[in-house]
Amino acid sequence: MAGEFDIIATYFAPLADDPSALGLCDDAAELSPPPGADLVLTKDAMVASVHFFESDPPDLVARKLARVNLSDLAAKGADPLGYLLGLALPAAWSASELEGFAEGLRLDQAEFGWSLLGGDTVATPGPLTLSLTAIGHVPRGTMIKRKGAKAGDLVFVTGTIGDAALGLRIQKGEFEGGASRDDLIHRYHLPEPRLSVGRELRRLATAALDVSDGLIADLTHLAQSSGVAVALDLEAIPFSGAAQDLVDAGLVSREELAAGGDDYEIVFSVAPERAPEVPEIAERTGVPIRQIGRVLAGAAGEILDRNGEKTSFKSKGYDHFSK
Amino acid sequence: MAGEFDIIATYFAPLADDPSALGLCDDAAELSPPPGADLVLTKDAMVASVHFFESDPPDLVARKLARVNLSDLAAKGADPLGYLLGLALPAAWSASELEGFAEGLRLDQAEFGWSLLGGDTVATPGPLTLSLTAIGHVPRGTMIKRKGAKAGDLVFVTGTIGDAALGLRIQKGEFEGGASRDDLIHRYHLPEPRLSVGRELRRLATAALDVSDGLIADLTHLAQSSGVAVALDLEAIPFSGAAQDLVDAGLVSREELAAGGDDYEIVFSVAPERAPEVPEIAERTGVPIRQIGRVLAGAAGEILDRNGEKTSFKSKGYDHFSK
Repeated sequence: MAGEFDIIATYFAPLADDPSALGLCDDAAELSPPPGADLVLTKDAMVASVHFFESDPPDLVARKLARVNLSDLAAKGADPLGYLLGLALPAAWSASELEGFAEGLRLDQAEFGWSLLGGDTVATPGPLTLSLTAIGHVPRGTMIKRKGAKAGDLVFVTGTIGDAALGLRIQKGEFEGGASRDDLIHRYHLPEPRLSVGRELRRLATAALDVSDGLIADLTHLAQSSGVAVALDLEAIPFSGAAQDLVDAGLVSREELAAGGDDYEIVFSVAPERAPEVPEIAERTGVPIRQIGRVLAGAAGEILDRNGEKTSFKSKGYDHFSK
Repeated sequence: MAGEFDIIATYFAPLADDPSALGLCDDAAELSPPPGADLVLTKDAMVASVHFFESDPPDLVARKLARVNLSDLAAKGADPLGYLLGLALPAAWSASELEGFAEGLRLDQAEFGWSLLGGDTVATPGPLTLSLTAIGHVPRGTMIKRKGAKAGDLVFVTGTIGDAALGLRIQKGEFEGGASRDDLIHRYHLPEPRLSVGRELRRLATAALDVSDGLIADLTHLAQSSGVAVALDLEAIPFSGAAQDLVDAGLVSREELAAGGDDYEIVFSVAPERAPEVPEIAERTGVPIRQIGRVLAGAAGEILDRNGEKTSFKSKGYDHFSK
């Protein structure tokens, strides 16, 4: 493989189209924050064979890396500014794989309006290891926290839940998937960061986060941070036609889908008097939003059934270290 | 090993002492940039067995990771604000290793006045892989670039050159090292980011970067970015007593030391009429600074001898992919 400097010049410098990046020809980026803004900073890492298949196409791996970070920005109400990329490359990685990877980043820069600002490329004897630090901005004081949900608030989720987890199970060979096979795998590979919805939630949602560990696990995080319980209506969770067919056929349960993870939808809470604004947001953005529960005064982090009764959900989601 | 959430709560949440970090209980940090500031963003990655020995103590690995990034901030004239940490942990990493790693970060947070702001901890089947995104700030428009050196400028370097490279060679068993053995290994493990000097250079240096790839290689980068040549006086390069002894004994050449790398000193250029300010900075900060060359109008990136004549230096420094 070519040297580090050649790799940067060939594949990554063309992605540094923001003047802050100094063409990747310096040791640091120089970012003038938008006036009156807070910066929103997040970082997600991905390791081949842990977070994606070694055989996944490099462009899709790059886009998933970008999108899981963009999804965090979206859930916090932030607009993306740029990112720094950490890349530990196995010696076996070829020029065409690097080219595919850079092309994936380029496509999503164009789609989401952000730019590579800097990073580091190193060699590793281990698997391809990626980390991305995403930088977004919000008007000062408007970042949506996990903490802030209050008893009486209504709980909503965007899009549909469970498709990505089904896509993963199909890719693992656990499922056939039928006519929806490709769609479900696509949902697993290419999450859709809900930036347009997040922007509208800035001065509306009392708490929010993106669904990455699974709806039940992430609702637990929201409830725990906010010091409240949540009554979750399993029947109200929005499923795609493909997922609903599998539920109807008895092949998966609603609960499994709600525990699946990798959805990258936004789950959020809104004060009841402002709940009528939510359908307007769905209409303006074209993203379906469904009410799935209510916030209750109760044990912090407890997820109850639709009637507010104790229940025990089978899975609390994905934690890379415990499986 | 414990789960990701336990690791964060036990080892890393106590390091998140800046309110921007939200106690690591959210998906993102919320940073209000200092008024009138530009942010300076940099990212360095390190892989066990490539950038450090698997047997290196975890606290020293953590501190080196912090310091190589702080050194980038220093060379750009920036004051550190905080950092995001990406950690890919092998299953074999124990609680006491994690504890040591966190303790190293804690020590350097206290020393350099910055805070953990966020990050991601994942599992890897490969070697320990670290990445750190450092965030610093400068008064708007004052970040020192690589680009900006002009013919006639004088070239300076802080501290001493070659000790860390000698420390590495001692650790590899290539050298005995004598009485200075531990000091040289210490220089390799614990670089000293020159933040106090960098701060003083903001409105003085025409160009700067930190010496990580080796003095000759990094001078080449400065000269290339600035579109100039540099006449380097090998005899003027500052060496420690230990390094000088090895040179005098004929065990290493000045040129090898100048090609070594891992020094984390600052090399910078200053207009000749302002050069008298440099010794004052050395005095105020207590960091020795020595003139080692001059900027010449010439082929961009060319390093010439002290008389401005063509020469060919043996090594152009370290590039992880080509060795």
